[in-house]
Amino acid sequence: MTNMENTLDRIHELIECDANQQLSDELNTYHSADLADIFQQLKPEERLKCITLVEEEKAADVIEYLPPQLQVEILGDIDEGLASRLISKLPHDEAADVLGDMEDDETQTYLDKLPQKFSSEVRELLTYNEDTAGGIMTPLVLTVGFSMTVKDALDTIRIKAEKENLELYYVYVVDKHNHLLGVVSLRTLLTSPIDLSISDIMSRDVVKVHVDDYQGHIADIFMKYQFNALPVVDLYNHLKGIVTWDDVQDIVEEETTDEIYTSSGIVTDFADDDDILTGSLAHSIKARIPWLFITLIGEFIAVSITNKYDHTFTALPIIAAFMPLLAGLGGNIGTQSITLMVRGMSTGQISLSTGWNHIIRETLTGISIGLIFGVLVTLVTWGWQHNIELGVIVGLAMSLNMTIATLIGSCTPLILKKMKIDPAVASGPVIATTIDVVGLAVYLTLVTWYLISI
Amino acid sequence: MTNMENTLDRIHELIECDANQQLSDELNTYHSADLADIFQQLKPEERLKCITLVEEEKAADVIEYLPPQLQVEILGDIDEGLASRLISKLPHDEAADVLGDMEDDETQTYLDKLPQKFSSEVRELLTYNEDTAGGIMTPLVLTVGFSMTVKDALDTIRIKAEKENLELYYVYVVDKHNHLLGVVSLRTLLTSPIDLSISDIMSRDVVKVHVDDYQGHIADIFMKYQFNALPVVDLYNHLKGIVTWDDVQDIVEEETTDEIYTSSGIVTDFADDDDILTGSLAHSIKARIPWLFITLIGEFIAVSITNKYDHTFTALPIIAAFMPLLAGLGGNIGTQSITLMVRGMSTGQISLSTGWNHIIRETLTGISIGLIFGVLVTLVTWGWQHNIELGVIVGLAMSLNMTIATLIGSCTPLILKKMKIDPAVASGPVIATTIDVVGLAVYLTLVTWYLISI
Repeated sequence: MTNMENTLDRIHELIECDANQQLSDELNTYHSADLADIFQQLKPEERLKCITLVEEEKAADVIEYLPPQLQVEILGDIDEGLASRLISKLPHDEAADVLGDMEDDETQTYLDKLPQKFSSEVRELLTYNEDTAGGIMTPLVLTVGFSMTVKDALDTIRIKAEKENLELYYVYVVDKHNHLLGVVSLRTLLTSPIDLSISDIMSRDVVKVHVDDYQGHIADIFMKYQFNALPVVDLYNHLKGIVTWDDVQDIVEEETTDEIYTSSGIVTDFADDDDILTGSLAHSIKARIPWLFITLIGEFIAVSITNKYDHTFTALPIIAAFMPLLAGLGGNIGTQSITLMVRGMSTGQISLSTGWNHIIRETLTGISIGLIFGVLVTLVTWGWQHNIELGVIVGLAMSLNMTIATLIGSCTPLILKKMKIDPAVASGPVIATTIDVVGLAVYLTLVTWYLISI
Repeated sequence: MTNMENTLDRIHELIECDANQQLSDELNTYHSADLADIFQQLKPEERLKCITLVEEEKAADVIEYLPPQLQVEILGDIDEGLASRLISKLPHDEAADVLGDMEDDETQTYLDKLPQKFSSEVRELLTYNEDTAGGIMTPLVLTVGFSMTVKDALDTIRIKAEKENLELYYVYVVDKHNHLLGVVSLRTLLTSPIDLSISDIMSRDVVKVHVDDYQGHIADIFMKYQFNALPVVDLYNHLKGIVTWDDVQDIVEEETTDEIYTSSGIVTDFADDDDILTGSLAHSIKARIPWLFITLIGEFIAVSITNKYDHTFTALPIIAAFMPLLAGLGGNIGTQSITLMVRGMSTGQISLSTGWNHIIRETLTGISIGLIFGVLVTLVTWGWQHNIELGVIVGLAMSLNMTIATLIGSCTPLILKKMKIDPAVASGPVIATTIDVVGLAVYLTLVTWYLISI
């Protein structure tokens, strides 16, 4: 898709001319992922018209690529018969997600309309917490018997994969009670002599997840082993489904968003990231107030410290004017340190044991940059205010401030991690406020020493 | 791996007792990904001992799971013969990455030692920019002829996949000059009647990338279409290799780190993220100074504005004490807005056309939170300083400040995006400084009005 605007123009024109046949031909030439992009740019009534003109297989595919809100909106607006046909064409996990996002009575209505088998399988998925392996997995798994030969297994796949629209990554080996015994990659299966027994070629060290494992854990396992799919089992090692890499893709994006939000002091515990971005305004406000409130308390401490120096401001008001400069730069370099530490710990580049090296490194960076900026600020202030003492004080405060900021910014996340608290939490706003308070205290102390000495 | 510490204790003990046979047995029971985790916790000399005790196939696998720096370190330290055997067991793209990270003369030495065919394929990979499809792809692709039958194709796969250690996701269909004509999923291949022609079952609308496409683009295509692998072609549509989802996984992590660094004012253009975190201190300083310098200029503007109010500070020094409070909270709520906008645009939840809704939403959030905090600050200040006018001024400044901060924080990224500038760039530090300057100006103007009116 090189030029979305031209495409949209053409589609708008066809909609306006009511040229349904042409519009249908045009729409059906696109890949479903492209159609999903197009649909997101259309107005609701245009979308409704278009979806009915796309072949049903493709329409179901398009639904799969759309964001959750839009899925529910479109399925709610189109004819109920078409909606249930489309839902029944979705993979089980997607169907469960869509139905789970609807109002309860709507969900029931659709579940009753869906084919018996599909409906009961989706019903089971709906019983799992949507953030766990059970809520993410698809229950359709390609399994073969323990004692089959390679030839039997290939024949089984031939039949099952076609009938059930299965994902084909690995073939799982089970006993007759559906206990997970091993896994065979398709590659091994296709390249083994056809009369060997599956039990001879399967790998018995299966990496698997439990239906109740949370999504963060599942993402970690995927990232670590880099598989395309992982089997999901229950307490008794019954194979319940598989989680595939594209599900994990979404999880990783969600977790990253969570991490970024948390670092900026947006609370993600009680609402979805989506809700914070597009849900009710109350959600958005509730997510943002807690850390702002903590900042408020911290900054009031800064105010009360600063207020002790009121005689200084009366005597030398320019001292006050330099406060934003010191707070601004200390905050910035501190944020850089926090970011490097928090991100490094989340990607695994910084561990508890290597953390101290990074703190030393950050502090050295702080000292170096602090020296450069200290000299710069001294020179500018001297040149501007023709007052070398003021320049030296501000410059010295700047150097100290930047060094302390890198120290606080790099230590705190590591200490939080050691205390088993998510280092992203509290990092941004609290550390920034601490740096503010400490920076001001250092500066005003220096000023006082100077004023006493003259 | 439930308890890394116990595992490490046991391994340390075996190393100390020099119980090589037991150590080898113990190490070989782990999955390579777990071994890679263990190796990262060992001291260099322990690592060297352990790697020679692991079976070579597995050792090559472990190398694959290790971070680049450690790969080069280990391969440089072990016996050259073992090193080249391990490298020759790596997938082509990994081997090229490892060799690319070594010193030039070392790379040459190893290339000369590797098997002829492998060496020349890796040499070709080394000619591509490492951030493009050519640098990421593996050149081993499973291809079948246009006019084969399903049976021929399955037989070809049986032979080729075994011999060449191929990844099996899709089977690509080429003509005799290796032009890419179509793609067949393994699923289709396995479930089609064996006498059908490949040209009848293949899909001709192949989503592909070009060898010179940059990694960000490749990641976008993967995220959009959610394929497991994409073919890589040259200008003339010759099939050159495939990029698989686990390569993309690494790209996405790298791009996310880039985005997070950039938002905090860390410049990532001239050095790898890894270099900034662990390379020479000069790299780290160079990455951090540019935006700090811009902040310095911005804050000097704030200083010169503030300095115009020196008579105010002389008359009413407490006015100065409230500056950090206003700047701190304005900065925080502004950062929240920036984060929501920048992240939303990067995940595609916010587009240029829906952006204005989000600005309105942010501003409403700013007004609401601003009102709450304005009232709070008024009450606290009134209670603390027994001065209701001061309370009202600070509270009013707080409300205005928070509203303006959300407005600036949400508008700027969108405007940058409209101007085709990466919204993450400049967002953090510059917007924070702007909010500082504007916030102080509003506050001090309010104060002046009040002082004139009394």
